[in-house]
Amino acid sequence: MNVKMNHRLQAYFDRHQNHARLLITCLDQPGIVAAVSKFLYDRKANIVQSDQYTTDPEGGQFFMRVAFDMPEMKDYEDTLVREFEEVANTFKMEWRLSFADQLKRMAIFVSKQEHCLLELLWQLQSGDLTAEVPMVISNHPDHRELVESFNIPFYHIPVTKETKKEAEQEQLALLKDKVDVIVLARYMQILSPEFVAHYPGKIINIHHSFLPAFVGAKPYERAYERGVKLIGATSHYVTNDLDEGPIIEQDVHRVNHRYHVDDLKRIGGHIERSVLARAVGWHLEDRIIAHNNKTVVF
Amino acid sequence: MNVKMNHRLQAYFDRHQNHARLLITCLDQPGIVAAVSKFLYDRKANIVQSDQYTTDPEGGQFFMRVAFDMPEMKDYEDTLVREFEEVANTFKMEWRLSFADQLKRMAIFVSKQEHCLLELLWQLQSGDLTAEVPMVISNHPDHRELVESFNIPFYHIPVTKETKKEAEQEQLALLKDKVDVIVLARYMQILSPEFVAHYPGKIINIHHSFLPAFVGAKPYERAYERGVKLIGATSHYVTNDLDEGPIIEQDVHRVNHRYHVDDLKRIGGHIERSVLARAVGWHLEDRIIAHNNKTVVF
Amino acid sequence: MNVKMNHRLQAYFDRHQNHARLLITCLDQPGIVAAVSKFLYDRKANIVQSDQYTTDPEGGQFFMRVAFDMPEMKDYEDTLVREFEEVANTFKMEWRLSFADQLKRMAIFVSKQEHCLLELLWQLQSGDLTAEVPMVISNHPDHRELVESFNIPFYHIPVTKETKKEAEQEQLALLKDKVDVIVLARYMQILSPEFVAHYPGKIINIHHSFLPAFVGAKPYERAYERGVKLIGATSHYVTNDLDEGPIIEQDVHRVNHRYHVDDLKRIGGHIERSVLARAVGWHLEDRIIAHNNKTVVF
Amino acid sequence: MNVKMNHRLQAYFDRHQNHARLLITCLDQPGIVAAVSKFLYDRKANIVQSDQYTTDPEGGQFFMRVAFDMPEMKDYEDTLVREFEEVANTFKMEWRLSFADQLKRMAIFVSKQEHCLLELLWQLQSGDLTAEVPMVISNHPDHRELVESFNIPFYHIPVTKETKKEAEQEQLALLKDKVDVIVLARYMQILSPEFVAHYPGKIINIHHSFLPAFVGAKPYERAYERGVKLIGATSHYVTNDLDEGPIIEQDVHRVNHRYHVDDLKRIGGHIERSVLARAVGWHLEDRIIAHNNKTVVF
Repeated sequence: MNVKMNHRLQAYFDRHQNHARLLITCLDQPGIVAAVSKFLYDRKANIVQSDQYTTDPEGGQFFMRVAFDMPEMKDYEDTLVREFEEVANTFKMEWRLSFADQLKRMAIFVSKQEHCLLELLWQLQSGDLTAEVPMVISNHPDHRELVESFNIPFYHIPVTKETKKEAEQEQLALLKDKVDVIVLARYMQILSPEFVAHYPGKIINIHHSFLPAFVGAKPYERAYERGVKLIGATSHYVTNDLDEGPIIEQDVHRVNHRYHVDDLKRIGGHIERSVLARAVGWHLEDRIIAHNNKTVVF
Repeated sequence: MNVKMNHRLQAYFDRHQNHARLLITCLDQPGIVAAVSKFLYDRKANIVQSDQYTTDPEGGQFFMRVAFDMPEMKDYEDTLVREFEEVANTFKMEWRLSFADQLKRMAIFVSKQEHCLLELLWQLQSGDLTAEVPMVISNHPDHRELVESFNIPFYHIPVTKETKKEAEQEQLALLKDKVDVIVLARYMQILSPEFVAHYPGKIINIHHSFLPAFVGAKPYERAYERGVKLIGATSHYVTNDLDEGPIIEQDVHRVNHRYHVDDLKRIGGHIERSVLARAVGWHLEDRIIAHNNKTVVF
Repeated sequence: MNVKMNHRLQAYFDRHQNHARLLITCLDQPGIVAAVSKFLYDRKANIVQSDQYTTDPEGGQFFMRVAFDMPEMKDYEDTLVREFEEVANTFKMEWRLSFADQLKRMAIFVSKQEHCLLELLWQLQSGDLTAEVPMVISNHPDHRELVESFNIPFYHIPVTKETKKEAEQEQLALLKDKVDVIVLARYMQILSPEFVAHYPGKIINIHHSFLPAFVGAKPYERAYERGVKLIGATSHYVTNDLDEGPIIEQDVHRVNHRYHVDDLKRIGGHIERSVLARAVGWHLEDRIIAHNNKTVVF
Repeated sequence: MNVKMNHRLQAYFDRHQNHARLLITCLDQPGIVAAVSKFLYDRKANIVQSDQYTTDPEGGQFFMRVAFDMPEMKDYEDTLVREFEEVANTFKMEWRLSFADQLKRMAIFVSKQEHCLLELLWQLQSGDLTAEVPMVISNHPDHRELVESFNIPFYHIPVTKETKKEAEQEQLALLKDKVDVIVLARYMQILSPEFVAHYPGKIINIHHSFLPAFVGAKPYERAYERGVKLIGATSHYVTNDLDEGPIIEQDVHRVNHRYHVDDLKRIGGHIERSVLARAVGWHLEDRIIAHNNKTVVF
């Protein structure tokens, strides 16, 4: 990370040292909120924001996010996790407790187009996004200079049909134990199921269309052919079904007959980078719970 | 109400007979959520949706909305209110407990332009909005036939500079004990502070501009003069400061140099009716807490 | 048409009696604009608005719309058409000259859901749309009272799999020589190729999704399943390929995990009526040229 | 300019070497379009796009933009300007003929906040914007490294109340004969009338609110206080009336009670950079005619 980034991070740590976020999902049942509230109250936590949602009043799935401050939290983090385990077990929760001072480690994958990569680096520098970036991996050498100017290691791993398996092995070796989330910032290779299995729910992609319209290749060309009046972009978690993973965020922009394919790509690029940056930001702030191929974004 | 409306209402009652919403605001302090959750849990309430927000982690204002179902609620409504009073007092809450089967009674005020009135009547008929409408009051006679075709009483109370005081007295007499909320659906008279004092936080207005731009009269004419590229509408609670009350909802639509004042009015009218209908809907569903001239919309 | 509609129409005629619109498309070639401009200039026409577009600087398709006023146009309409034919032939134009005082005659087809029908009737009454409506045809009897209250003839023609052919014959007999455009305002029957062939480029449909996402049946259910973050509606000309005709207008609205299928339908209904009304308005004002399964909207 | 920029420029020149744009405004009168069309036709120009607009059918102001290709234009540019002068004089036109191969020279003024500067540099590098940038001027030294990394000269000219006059003299001396347009990319000093008089209609500002709401200082703080539900940004030409010049482009983004001032600034920053970049792009492509404190954007 470069000097500006370090400066921003210091300010972030000062603000967030006693801040945590609890994400929960389980079958809805009486007493969940009361139990969680009591747990936090007994530990002198101050709830800053709390959101809940139940898919169905009777027998539905329950979702909850609580953001809270707790004095002297740093020394208490492990204990807190251990203690909450009991509450969680009672209700058979899937859950995650994240401490804001433990930055998420984010790898960025990119191919030739730089706009999404650049937006992420820029927002990391400005403090709009907060994460560690241990590496950028690309199947092209083009962005080495850009990435290294941010003091971020850049790895060029070419991918061909023949070498894909080896390339993924090489990627996995680099990533191992070093990253919490992978962002595909217009990475134009399809990851194998084996790769995806290593990071379930932890790979974020940007697709250059308003999914499920124009699944697959060349969406702007096809949008042009179809004569749509709005073009869009979609950020989603990657699963083994191409472009079918849980949608995190989407947006669109109005176009008309005057826009050629090149114009759609140019405007689409602006949508892509803002949609991806929002999705990544929500993931980094532990705002997203994926369930049954959909997301709850609190 | 006409036959279609009655039919919709029956369906609504079937769905909502055991449903209530609790709105709370107070100074933030430890234990609020725990206390409310426990209160509901002890009474076998099932929380369907819960939203909280605190303006500031330390010493801020706390806001909460809980929507819950409770078996056999009907027989228990008064008790529930009385019992919650204790919790409320502990935390010095401002609060309101609304039962979905007790329809809000909504008076509509209108002048010559009908589009907002028509949208409200239509959404009441389609079931998108649910309220009783004991009366429509207008300073013009034009919409009697329309209103009465919905089986809603229509009162024509002319207003001139000289008769304004008497007119408001007449309005207040009609409204007394009969309405919970008043919607100004392009009612082009300014209500006196005396009138407003009878319904604090209970009068919803639609202003035909994106406030605070173009406060006051002739906003579309002034938007045209200024050459803005977006026009908008704003729904807000009425206070004694003209167009300065808490904003509930706003929206805009893109325009360009081709749009004359008449076009701005026409397009603006469509924004007005959707913005007003959304604001009214949120009020009817007890989603809004007004505080310090702002709204929290859950 | 009812009294209010008649009143609006009179105002419209007063404003538009000398107003015409010329729509042109042909292969791009030098001199088209010069020839059209000279033709109008020689006849003392005053061009109010003119838009042109060429798909490609070299060898592309040329599109033009000219709106103009001409003194005493009424007596000159037939001559004008005949005289322009010469210009048109020189450039092998497809073209249409529409006189604003000759109202388009619009039939509306509807099934059970009334929101799109109601929006059209309402905008016709308010003067936002201007057309004659010689008939509303429905495969259900439900909206007779509503339609007849606007003094518009209502025809109930039931359609079953077995009777579809006869039903369409009956519809065609009613429409014959009486309508210029047909609007499918949530008409839930698929028209046969034989029917469509009678009104090429003259049938406007509203599809309840952001096409090409969710082509076909139950789009809101599928949008809910897919977990999209925006829902939309699409108005398009009807061709023989289901939901594949030239798109006229689209719009979207943001939704989130809290929205159930019913909410998507309710919000989608509001998008549908505004999108359809805009598309119909542009058609009535001769703003649309369809070409190669796309539209140019000037 | 750096290497990437040079590469993009070469591609731009290859595409645009025979391309010109003619902007016209004058009192509406018969024969303008015919005369312009004939002028271009006689010179074998191929009209690629043409837009016209008249404020009023009778006695209004006429606006026109014609984009055209002409073989071998390079050798003919001066002649073309001289020859069109005759047509222009006949109709008393204000007009401008721009040749796409003569890049506009754009100076950027910036203060401490970098996001708008960065967006412009980035879009210049990606080819989304095309201009020469002979200099960036700032009243703070902070962005020297960034600007110089793009091979663009950076001048630090501090401004205090006392030195403002001298500072502007220094700026004017640097700019003299070197720039066609000045972009204030969050330059937080108010330019004096004397300065503005040197570049009438050629200074583009970005204001961090949806004008005319929140004219003047601290718009995000005031937006927060007012509790608006949408925040926006406005790009406009600079005149001597603060924030009152002709509006070029505006956009908004939805916010709610959860957004603190810092959030509004962060989100607003994203709106600012996209709105400013669009406005600058339209100016560079000669799409804007300012007239009577409004803009026509073709």
